[in-house]
Amino acid sequence: MDFKLKSYKKDFDYSYTFGAFPTMELINFKPEAVVKVLVSSNYDKKSSEDSIYSVCNDKNIEVEENDKLFNKLSPKENCYVIGVLKKFNSQIDKNKSHVVLVNPSNMGNIGTIIRTMIGFGINDLAVIGHGADLFNPKVIRASMGAIFKLKFTHYDCFEDYINENGQRSVYPFMLKGAVTLDSVKVEKDKPFSIVFGNEATGLSDDFLNYGTSVLIPHHKTIDSLNLTIAAGIAIYEFSLKSK
Amino acid sequence: MDFKLKSYKKDFDYSYTFGAFPTMELINFKPEAVVKVLVSSNYDKKSSEDSIYSVCNDKNIEVEENDKLFNKLSPKENCYVIGVLKKFNSQIDKNKSHVVLVNPSNMGNIGTIIRTMIGFGINDLAVIGHGADLFNPKVIRASMGAIFKLKFTHYDCFEDYINENGQRSVYPFMLKGAVTLDSVKVEKDKPFSIVFGNEATGLSDDFLNYGTSVLIPHHKTIDSLNLTIAAGIAIYEFSLKSK
Repeated sequence: MDFKLKSYKKDFDYSYTFGAFPTMELINFKPEAVVKVLVSSNYDKKSSEDSIYSVCNDKNIEVEENDKLFNKLSPKENCYVIGVLKKFNSQIDKNKSHVVLVNPSNMGNIGTIIRTMIGFGINDLAVIGHGADLFNPKVIRASMGAIFKLKFTHYDCFEDYINENGQRSVYPFMLKGAVTLDSVKVEKDKPFSIVFGNEATGLSDDFLNYGTSVLIPHHKTIDSLNLTIAAGIAIYEFSLKSK
Repeated sequence: MDFKLKSYKKDFDYSYTFGAFPTMELINFKPEAVVKVLVSSNYDKKSSEDSIYSVCNDKNIEVEENDKLFNKLSPKENCYVIGVLKKFNSQIDKNKSHVVLVNPSNMGNIGTIIRTMIGFGINDLAVIGHGADLFNPKVIRASMGAIFKLKFTHYDCFEDYINENGQRSVYPFMLKGAVTLDSVKVEKDKPFSIVFGNEATGLSDDFLNYGTSVLIPHHKTIDSLNLTIAAGIAIYEFSLKSK
């Protein structure tokens, strides 16, 4: 792969990890996707045996010191390592439990939700709609590289997702939810889907027709919970309830 | 109050709410702190009876249309309303339950935690250390104005906080926590403090000596939970357990 690296755009067939931690996750969990690793002259080469240099050397990954590219590619001043990766295909497992995000719009939120999912053992993400680009460097960075342990699939609409993913218990999270989170019963032998709407608009009333809609009760003193907080609480609770 | 408005700095005695929603929260919950409201010519004046114009008119608050100031003050293009507020003093209630943040560093995270606290009925926040500025417009914006319903106090160190806030159950959240969140018992007749460390460093081992340290168990596939997610799960669980 030989090309001139540019500031990220959605239609590229490659993307970037900014920072040593997510780059290490990339190398360890998706080594086949790594194109090369860029290192700034500010990176402490002698830091430890686990340095990017020794890990890349072990795996025959090219490391290039190139300060000019850092200024061009990296949005953050304290970023000394950039991974260049080729985008890869991914497919969720229909026999596993899923998180489903309907038209998510904030890249940082998607990454934070991915990090939370992986932390609580839900490793499959369905994204409804094509507005969100999971390879956006902001998603990768907010996920702290957890995206390299994730399986994910995009669907045009929720109907397509349901049709392709068979028998499962569906729980849309909504302010109009029929049951509260603390009283939801989760069947232990059946995979579940917990479904969240867009940051600004939530899920439409159509979702009241799918499975069991769930409410996280909160005081009326706030308009709604932040999406990542609602998803974090739900993922934690469902991971406990399904044990 | 007559002065030239400038881009926010920590040492100002005034700050800003960016956006109609947090500005409305400011007007409704801290009307005495409002200096004036700025409106962009892009703001839809006829939108509804609840418009900024009618609310400010009711409360004798000056509204100024001033596009020049928007370009100077607002970080976001889609912001059409800015509230100018005088900073105010606040004091936590020692008989109530608290969230305690030790040296928090990310303004957006602090705001998101405040929004979650207010949503689950914990209205008192202690901040240890003076690095974080709760009046930073990024805190206000991420809180969606929930900060105007919050009581908060800064302390030099955790010892000072404990000395001034009397008998209470203390729960530091740590990766080395002695008990898991799902097994923590919360005394219903005693106020609690749930304590969280800095985004990057967490809480030091010293905190193992205070109260009951708590772990939110997660898979080793991630390094740690995002601070706002850990705090969100803890606040939700403690609000349920203390009912």
